[in-house]
Amino acid sequence: MSSSAACIFCKIIKGDIPSFKVFESDKVFAFLDIQPLSRGHALVIPKFHGAKLTDIPDEDLLEVLPVAKKIAKASGAEDFNILQNNGRIAHQVVDHVHFHMIPKPNEQEGLGISWPAKESDMDKLKALHEEIKSKM
Amino acid sequence: MSSSAACIFCKIIKGDIPSFKVFESDKVFAFLDIQPLSRGHALVIPKFHGAKLTDIPDEDLLEVLPVAKKIAKASGAEDFNILQNNGRIAHQVVDHVHFHMIPKPNEQEGLGISWPAKESDMDKLKALHEEIKSKM
Repeated sequence: MSSSAACIFCKIIKGDIPSFKVFESDKVFAFLDIQPLSRGHALVIPKFHGAKLTDIPDEDLLEVLPVAKKIAKASGAEDFNILQNNGRIAHQVVDHVHFHMIPKPNEQEGLGISWPAKESDMDKLKALHEEIKSKM
Repeated sequence: MSSSAACIFCKIIKGDIPSFKVFESDKVFAFLDIQPLSRGHALVIPKFHGAKLTDIPDEDLLEVLPVAKKIAKASGAEDFNILQNNGRIAHQVVDHVHFHMIPKPNEQEGLGISWPAKESDMDKLKALHEEIKSKM
């Protein structure tokens, strides 16, 4: 199991830093965010230490969404966002993969999203499609 | 398998509407977003039809993150966001669960996020912690 002595989330997993834990298994740990965007805001993390989604083995990811679902139900949230950020520019602050479950009770609370969609360029998409398929 | 005749994503899964498919298995389907926020923006969906994460059986969720990871790697994105929206107020447009993999190459392109964090209220968090734990 990958772990980092300097990582705040690895310390939370080990119990060296207290947390409002709501779930723990061999692979996954979940706790309430102490600077929530809304009531019920929680984090689900693989115990395996890695900064980005692409660093985590598949087997350490399997349980993440079922646990996020379980917490969403327990929180009573009707509407909510699941968000996982990779890289500073993508709003990641702690370099240990974490999935936010953020209830969206109203416009003011919860995650704020802006969506600068591009116009469809079918020729570019077709070329990109071939490129990505060839790398899958 | 749950499916909806009126659902655009169910039609894409069946092949009745064409898509830039990049992955398909028994449980999961993935394709490029044709109104991308950035180059490589893709969607990973369970084949099981349900509007919200809480509607999808665990077994239909297991493969979603490994596939999103695979596409992130194939796209070459260094920084990216994984996002799944539940409910209109939470920015959901199509009522079939879908996970966005959105590369974040620069400030202008990709997902825009605002983060209206609240101050920590430890007493409220403690009470909420007990409540959520009791419902898990």
